[in-house]
Amino acid sequence: MNITLSQAEQLISAAKEKAVSIDCKMNIAVVDAGANLVAFARMDGAWLGSLDISIKKAKTARFFDMNSGEIGKLSQPGESLYNIEHSNGGLITFPGGVLVKNSDGEIIGAIGVSGNAVENDHAVAEAGAAAL
Amino acid sequence: MNITLSQAEQLISAAKEKAVSIDCKMNIAVVDAGANLVAFARMDGAWLGSLDISIKKAKTARFFDMNSGEIGKLSQPGESLYNIEHSNGGLITFPGGVLVKNSDGEIIGAIGVSGNAVENDHAVAEAGAAAL
Amino acid sequence: MNITLSQAEQLISAAKEKAVSIDCKMNIAVVDAGANLVAFARMDGAWLGSLDISIKKAKTARFFDMNSGEIGKLSQPGESLYNIEHSNGGLITFPGGVLVKNSDGEIIGAIGVSGNAVENDHAVAEAGAAAL
Amino acid sequence: MNITLSQAEQLISAAKEKAVSIDCKMNIAVVDAGANLVAFARMDGAWLGSLDISIKKAKTARFFDMNSGEIGKLSQPGESLYNIEHSNGGLITFPGGVLVKNSDGEIIGAIGVSGNAVENDHAVAEAGAAAL
Repeated sequence: MNITLSQAEQLISAAKEKAVSIDCKMNIAVVDAGANLVAFARMDGAWLGSLDISIKKAKTARFFDMNSGEIGKLSQPGESLYNIEHSNGGLITFPGGVLVKNSDGEIIGAIGVSGNAVENDHAVAEAGAAAL
Repeated sequence: MNITLSQAEQLISAAKEKAVSIDCKMNIAVVDAGANLVAFARMDGAWLGSLDISIKKAKTARFFDMNSGEIGKLSQPGESLYNIEHSNGGLITFPGGVLVKNSDGEIIGAIGVSGNAVENDHAVAEAGAAAL
Repeated sequence: MNITLSQAEQLISAAKEKAVSIDCKMNIAVVDAGANLVAFARMDGAWLGSLDISIKKAKTARFFDMNSGEIGKLSQPGESLYNIEHSNGGLITFPGGVLVKNSDGEIIGAIGVSGNAVENDHAVAEAGAAAL
Repeated sequence: MNITLSQAEQLISAAKEKAVSIDCKMNIAVVDAGANLVAFARMDGAWLGSLDISIKKAKTARFFDMNSGEIGKLSQPGESLYNIEHSNGGLITFPGGVLVKNSDGEIIGAIGVSGNAVENDHAVAEAGAAAL
């Protein structure tokens, strides 16, 4: 099962609404089950450097089938996945990348959000993922 | 002047409509005046390899302020810009990248389309750019 | 609003003067609002490895609209942006990248300096940014 | 022998003057004998995609100690250096990269110019190189 463009656009729409409600300007990326970009939106005035980060967060989540922040706990100095960020052309392992599942609980993609404090990035990604 | 997300979404919507009307599955990318991605959509079943190509076509058009296919005429063997494609992290110089202007004729971004024959890619990009 | 070449050259001139006054040999880069290089100078005998660092510091500041050293505080092990340096083709998050604003307080670019202790890099960047 | 920053700035100043006189907006890059950037200037409104090309032209000239256009003759299909552009992180082999020599005829660096027709790029680079 793979996310459709129509579903990805629903996610981005819900994520934008949440971002506006907490007064944040976000970059929002949705990847499919193959970790390839399906849809993307950069809100007016959002940080330019967050473009790449939002895509990398979404890919990171799908690469390992867990939210990006979970991998960040394991990639710290002394931990088991130390510096895993060097793989796959660059990972981003702090919060803001969230798995997307269908109603059967199957992983069909992931959403990555970047543009503010990581708590806000994560909240917007969650709001997007919950739209299905 | 820079394209807004709302304008970029209008472009993608018009491009998708044109793509459906000619029975094509396209990757559609919109960049701003700084050649940075603003919005992207991959239609269901569109070629995976066209994802990167659509983004590169849009960037190529804005990098040199002309449609991507124009550059491709000059980059042929023996022509004045032979192998310019090796610059800027990789250019795509066949048709499908089209400049986007506002009502005053100012360049505010570019749209890149990839997924079918280059004539169709170009037609869909033109339909997108004409939406403003 | 975007920095002009003439303004960028003023910044580099002021930064060089400061560097000479504290007996440092610096690489100095100025990027515009789109994070693209506008002007660059490598003082005679300056570290070769600092060429790339000065450009990355300027870009990093503009990517997130804060001085590069601010991001470095958040990218430490255990902090919220750990290993953000893996994004955008490589960030530099220690001091020496400073935002450039016009008289209305708008961000119009950034300056990055590298070649000595980070305190000196930052001081030279500040002197450059203050030239407008 | 190596070009100094002061000499590089003379070259850029002369190149800018020539560019203005033929009504062109140019990216101008000067590299030293080690093929590393010494000074750079992007004139207001110059093509964004020419930034990278101007640097690559200067490097290409110094990499092989001949003007960039000379290499372009040899890199055509069927010729002896076919597709040499794939080396060194990307070469640009059409005109606009010119060697810089001191009064003893020693190569001390190279200048690369991009932003217009290659004849104009070359003319501006020649004007810069002649400033010493």
